[in-house]
Amino acid sequence: MATFMDVHDGFVGVSADELAEAHAADLAIEGEEGVHFIKAWLDPEAGKAFCLSEGPTKESVMRIHERTGHPTAEVYEIAVEV
Amino acid sequence: MATFMDVHDGFVGVSADELAEAHAADLAIEGEEGVHFIKAWLDPEAGKAFCLSEGPTKESVMRIHERTGHPTAEVYEIAVEV
Repeated sequence: MATFMDVHDGFVGVSADELAEAHAADLAIEGEEGVHFIKAWLDPEAGKAFCLSEGPTKESVMRIHERTGHPTAEVYEIAVEV
Repeated sequence: MATFMDVHDGFVGVSADELAEAHAADLAIEGEEGVHFIKAWLDPEAGKAFCLSEGPTKESVMRIHERTGHPTAEVYEIAVEV
């Protein structure tokens, strides 16, 4: 199990409800890939979102985000945290 | 008080000790700007680091990081989290 931070662009003007909905969609199917999305942060002005997750591989995280309609290629494996 | 996520590039090969040291340097002077660095995550292969903080403004976060030798212009104000 590894930890990942992924980054989304283009989330300009996304509301709290919309972020909650997107996160809930990920949670609903994450188990199929052995992934768990822990937390998401959004800057709706810049359109940047960050998701912290655990899972077996970077690709498993990408597949869940892709299936729920917010794909990103920018997934970082977190080897160190403090 | 607002919440911020900032992003650093070029941290390729940075070790756990080095990240802890950089984080400790931020913590040592953060009070001077009314900032608190909550957490940092690092992907040493991609060289990406993410810091979660609280503070009065984006610029206050930038000033602390700059003074401790790891400046970044990429600071996002987190209006929504889930």
